[in-house]
Amino acid sequence: MATPRGLVQYLDQQLHRSSLLVPRGRYLVAVSGGADSVALLRLLHAINGSDHWHWTLRVAHIDHGIRGRASAADARFVARLAKQLSLPCDVITLRLGTTASEDAARRARLDTLAQLARKHRCHAVLLAHHADDQAETVLLHMIRGCGLDGLAAMQDRQTLTINRRKITLVRPLLSLTRAELHAYLHDLHQPWREDQTNTSPRFARNRIRHEVLPLLESIRPGVANRLNQLAAIAADAQSLIETAAATIRPARPPRRRSTLVFARKALREIHPLLLRELLRQAPASLRQPMPAFTFERLREAAHAIAHARQPAHIELGHGYAVHITGTQIVIKHNAHPPR
Amino acid sequence: MATPRGLVQYLDQQLHRSSLLVPRGRYLVAVSGGADSVALLRLLHAINGSDHWHWTLRVAHIDHGIRGRASAADARFVARLAKQLSLPCDVITLRLGTTASEDAARRARLDTLAQLARKHRCHAVLLAHHADDQAETVLLHMIRGCGLDGLAAMQDRQTLTINRRKITLVRPLLSLTRAELHAYLHDLHQPWREDQTNTSPRFARNRIRHEVLPLLESIRPGVANRLNQLAAIAADAQSLIETAAATIRPARPPRRRSTLVFARKALREIHPLLLRELLRQAPASLRQPMPAFTFERLREAAHAIAHARQPAHIELGHGYAVHITGTQIVIKHNAHPPR
Repeated sequence: MATPRGLVQYLDQQLHRSSLLVPRGRYLVAVSGGADSVALLRLLHAINGSDHWHWTLRVAHIDHGIRGRASAADARFVARLAKQLSLPCDVITLRLGTTASEDAARRARLDTLAQLARKHRCHAVLLAHHADDQAETVLLHMIRGCGLDGLAAMQDRQTLTINRRKITLVRPLLSLTRAELHAYLHDLHQPWREDQTNTSPRFARNRIRHEVLPLLESIRPGVANRLNQLAAIAADAQSLIETAAATIRPARPPRRRSTLVFARKALREIHPLLLRELLRQAPASLRQPMPAFTFERLREAAHAIAHARQPAHIELGHGYAVHITGTQIVIKHNAHPPR
Repeated sequence: MATPRGLVQYLDQQLHRSSLLVPRGRYLVAVSGGADSVALLRLLHAINGSDHWHWTLRVAHIDHGIRGRASAADARFVARLAKQLSLPCDVITLRLGTTASEDAARRARLDTLAQLARKHRCHAVLLAHHADDQAETVLLHMIRGCGLDGLAAMQDRQTLTINRRKITLVRPLLSLTRAELHAYLHDLHQPWREDQTNTSPRFARNRIRHEVLPLLESIRPGVANRLNQLAAIAADAQSLIETAAATIRPARPPRRRSTLVFARKALREIHPLLLRELLRQAPASLRQPMPAFTFERLREAAHAIAHARQPAHIELGHGYAVHITGTQIVIKHNAHPPR
């Protein structure tokens, strides 16, 4: 295990190589008060002590209002830590209530972070996801059913649009393990707050963390690193496939955000995987949100595009359909799909 | 669950669609006596009863000589079953001894099957791997560390060269689950032999079968199907990437099975994933066996090819090295690597 100084040096070198963060960058660090985000904040603060980066760091703590008293204590803990490090800190309380879904909480959190980043002119929001989080995400996506995009799990840099506001997320800790971060905090005598939430949508992730990964680790130690490597390979493959699919141009510009038309002969010789990617990306090409088509529907449509001898019509779901004629492939979005 | 007749019909239709097996084909069915291979034999025999396929089926049973008396009883069981179905049967005893590794046993088994297939002019050897075997293989490859080729797991058709003899393996049952095959045998009142071997190299697979998959299934039912789907997607992606990498031509034909030369400018703009694939496939391009380079070495070499500003030399391991000059990339195989 690296010394605290060793871990700071390692991350510093990594950030030099990766260009994830830039000198004089303004960054909003999302700190829940848990070990991971406390370690992120202390590591960045330590790295910023050298004469190279000159970052402007700010702390943001989002209190979902789900955990009652413990929430308030988390907020005080983060505010105190920011003060000790002489960093400005915003604490925002959302009052989502105990019935909010995990997804609703996530969107509200990201929306608030995007607003704060804009207000403070920050270039990115920094998140504390680490190698074990990444391994859990790979397994979670796998058991829910995913393709290469899901297997790629979390990127170290990602731009999202939340309520029409763009937000850049950066994850500088993806190559470090939970154990390394905990050891770093122990060595610094830096406390953190334990998150006691165990709401039902996090149930699968908790079981992966506490049951599946330890079991896999007992069969073959070092599993988290190998899952991270597979995620990196899948991310590369997905980017290669997206680039290749993007070279397949529609026969004419899309009309009224609802119709994409391709020449059938342009699609006939194309690899089935690229056809599926083209269909998967069709909503984005129409500047619509991307729904999750099922693999079966995509495969059926790709097969029909390649092989149908007669005009055919395949429903992709979510209001999308593919119409196959002798010469054209038409992908249509029905804004008001039949109920 | 399908009826016995339903399962026969389903597989029959699948074989019509997939063209995995051809009418009047001559096939060697590998039967251990376990449930899976007994189900394969009975299903194929039932399908062959119709007036379409006219296959010539033969049974081959390989006795590894590892399990002593149980081995001999397995062999008698398979010979009796073949006789009931009026099919010719070869029983070959290998006498590998109790210390043989799983890999040595596998190679010896495939070698024997290839010899038998050749002797009887069979077009392919049929194996009983099913959807649950495939899911186990995906997880096994993942925990050992794999890329997309490992994630693709087993193909339904595969040509191998064992001791310079080509053998085509076909797996007609990959879309059926263990439960469906067992139910089929139960409904037929067809017994099978339980395999009691639990030799150490099979330890990881056994733990995946009996601990990991049931745990994942308890978190999210239907995991095996989704892992099979991911394997199919990975196989498609791998074939797409191999095809793309194969279009990158050396600057001149390889010399003496030891040297591949590329123009550096031909490789400079290439996606890192394709560069890694090119390096991974280099031994095959030199008509050498393909060793398993580590992901780190491949990544390091691909990075150097794209970015090195000075001549560089990277060892890939297994006697292979990449030499980078101002204008050339040379991949060399040292037949006698230094010890």
